[in-house]
Amino acid sequence: MTRIPYSEMHSLFREVFIQRGLDDERATRLATIIADNSRDGVYTHGLHRFARTVHEIEDGVIDKEARPAVVSSFGSIECWDGGFGIGPLGAWDAMARAVELAHQHGVGLVAIGRNNHWLRGGTYGLEAADAGCISICWSNTKPNMPVWGGATPLVGNNPLIISVPKDDGAHFVFDAAMSQYSYGKLEEYRLKGEDLPFPGGFDKDGKLTVKPADIEETGRVLPIGYWKGSGLSLALDLVATALSGGLSVTEIGKEGAERGLTQVMIAIDPAKLRSKEAVEALVGPILKSVTESRSLDGRAVRYPGQRLFTTRRKNLENGVPVVDQVWQEALALRR
Amino acid sequence: MTRIPYSEMHSLFREVFIQRGLDDERATRLATIIADNSRDGVYTHGLHRFARTVHEIEDGVIDKEARPAVVSSFGSIECWDGGFGIGPLGAWDAMARAVELAHQHGVGLVAIGRNNHWLRGGTYGLEAADAGCISICWSNTKPNMPVWGGATPLVGNNPLIISVPKDDGAHFVFDAAMSQYSYGKLEEYRLKGEDLPFPGGFDKDGKLTVKPADIEETGRVLPIGYWKGSGLSLALDLVATALSGGLSVTEIGKEGAERGLTQVMIAIDPAKLRSKEAVEALVGPILKSVTESRSLDGRAVRYPGQRLFTTRRKNLENGVPVVDQVWQEALALRR
Repeated sequence: MTRIPYSEMHSLFREVFIQRGLDDERATRLATIIADNSRDGVYTHGLHRFARTVHEIEDGVIDKEARPAVVSSFGSIECWDGGFGIGPLGAWDAMARAVELAHQHGVGLVAIGRNNHWLRGGTYGLEAADAGCISICWSNTKPNMPVWGGATPLVGNNPLIISVPKDDGAHFVFDAAMSQYSYGKLEEYRLKGEDLPFPGGFDKDGKLTVKPADIEETGRVLPIGYWKGSGLSLALDLVATALSGGLSVTEIGKEGAERGLTQVMIAIDPAKLRSKEAVEALVGPILKSVTESRSLDGRAVRYPGQRLFTTRRKNLENGVPVVDQVWQEALALRR
Repeated sequence: MTRIPYSEMHSLFREVFIQRGLDDERATRLATIIADNSRDGVYTHGLHRFARTVHEIEDGVIDKEARPAVVSSFGSIECWDGGFGIGPLGAWDAMARAVELAHQHGVGLVAIGRNNHWLRGGTYGLEAADAGCISICWSNTKPNMPVWGGATPLVGNNPLIISVPKDDGAHFVFDAAMSQYSYGKLEEYRLKGEDLPFPGGFDKDGKLTVKPADIEETGRVLPIGYWKGSGLSLALDLVATALSGGLSVTEIGKEGAERGLTQVMIAIDPAKLRSKEAVEALVGPILKSVTESRSLDGRAVRYPGQRLFTTRRKNLENGVPVVDQVWQEALALRR
C-alpha cells in the first residue's frame, strides 16, 4: 500500500482536468471533490472513479461544456437542468444554491435533473454543514436493484445523505445507498478477495449470499431492510423526478451509460430558529450518548461520519493510501 | 373476525373523546385519525391504540388541554412546542401549517417538539398529499433499538414517511419505522401466533431470531440494513431535536411513559415548479413500471401505499375488521 501526499493527488487531478479542457476554477473544484473523497477514506468514489470520470468527459458521456440552468423557481425551491454536465460540479452548485435559499428563507430546495453521477453524496452534506446548514439530499441512479418481489433490476440504490453541522467542523454525516452494499463496496471486497460481513444480495439460484462477485453477476443486490429499502428507493426516485422533471431511474436505464442522474438538495438553517450554541447543546448530548454507549463486543461505538474525520487527519498527515495499479493508471492520464 | 361499520367505529371514538372532555372539533378530528388508521388496514395504530390513548388522556400522560404554540419562525420554517398535548392533533396541525407554508414558499417545514405519539405517520403523508403536496416527515420515539454495535436500546425506531400525491387520490405513501418490524407488528405476529417472515431482532443469547416474543423481551429489534438503519435513525433524531428544541430519543427515555415526542413535517408543492399534469406524467410511469414488473414468485408486485387504498375500499364497503376482545374493550370505555 503506497501513500501519496494529498497535494500531489490533487495536483494530478487538476492538471488532467485542465488538459481535458476545463477552466482553472472548475478543474480545481472537481479535483478537490475527488481528492477529498480519497482523503476522507471513501476510496471507491475518489481515486477509483478518477479515470472513469476522465474517460466519460473524453467520450462525451459527460458534456464538459454544459452549465446547469434554472428551469423554474418559486420562493425557496428551484428546478435545474444539469444539461448532462459534470455531475459533481452541478451537484455542488445546486447545494450551494439550496444553502443560499436556506439562509434567506430558513429552508431551500434545489432539484437538478439531467445531471450526472455526483460521486460521493457525503460531499454535499459536508458542503451544507460547513455553511452551518442541516442537509437532506439524495441522487437517483441507473436501475441496479429489483423492486421488492420483482425479478429484474428496476429501482436504483439511490444514496441518501443527512448531515448535521457541528461547531468543531467534525460534522455528523449519514451517507448510505439503499442497497445493503454499494456496487463500489462489492468491488472493494471482491478486489480484497473477501466475503461480505452480511448477506448483500442474491446469487443466480436466488439464494442470499456473501460472495460479492455472485451478486455483481445477477445485479440482485439486497435493499436495506428488504421491502423497506425498496420502498424508500422508489420514494426518493419519485420525489426527485417530480421536482426536477429529469430522468427517473427507469429513464436513466435507457441511456446506455449511467448518465443524466437527478439529485435533490434540501438545506435547512437551524440558526434561524435558535442560536448556534443552543443547537450545539441539543446535538452534542445525542452524539455523546452514542460514543459512550455500552459496546456489544468491546469495539468503540461510533456515529456516522465520526471515523471520516479521523481518517482525514491520518491521510493528510501520512498521505492518502492508494492501490498502486489505480494510481499508475491515473498518472498515465497526464499528457 | 367481526366487521364493524366505519361510521359506528368513528361514532364510538368521537363520543368517548367528548366524554373525556375534548371539544367537538378536536374529538371528531382525533376519532377520524384513529378510525381512518383501522379503515386503511393499519390496525396496530387504529382501534388497537384507542384504549391506550384514552387512558393516557385520563392519566395525564397526554395533556388534553394543551395547544401547540409557535416558539420561533423564519420564512418557510417554524418551531412549535406541543406542550405534551394530544399527539395526532399536534402533528395534524403541524403538517397543515407546513402545507400552508409550501403553498406560500414552495417548501414548508414545521418541527414540533414536546408533542406526543402521532400514531400512524402515514396519516400526515396522506394529509399533505390530499393538499397536492409531496411530504417528508418523521417522528422520534423512546429508545427502543440499540445503536449499531451497542448493547442497550439507545436510538428510536423513528418512523419516516415520504408521500407523493396522485390525481386519483390513491397517493404513494412510504411509511416505515427504522426497525425491520415495528413493535406493533411484532405484537400483531405474536397475537396471531406466527413467526416473522425474516429475522427481526436478537434474542437474549444475542442470536438473530424470527420469534416476536423473544425480541420484545430483549428490546433488541434489528435496524433496517443493520448499521444503515441505525445511522438513519440517529440522523432523524438529531435533525428533529436540533429543529424543534424538544426531547431527543434519550430524553424521551427519561420520561417514564413514552411522551414528549418530536415530529418534523416537510411539505413541498410540486405545482409551483410545473403543472399538475406534468407532475402526473412524471410520476405515473414510475409506478406503472413497478406494477408491471416481472414478479419473482408470481405474486403481484406493488408499490408502497397501493394496498392501502384497496383495503380502504373493502373496509368501507364491508366494515372494518376488528379483534372482538379489543372492540369490546373499546365499547366499555363509553360512559
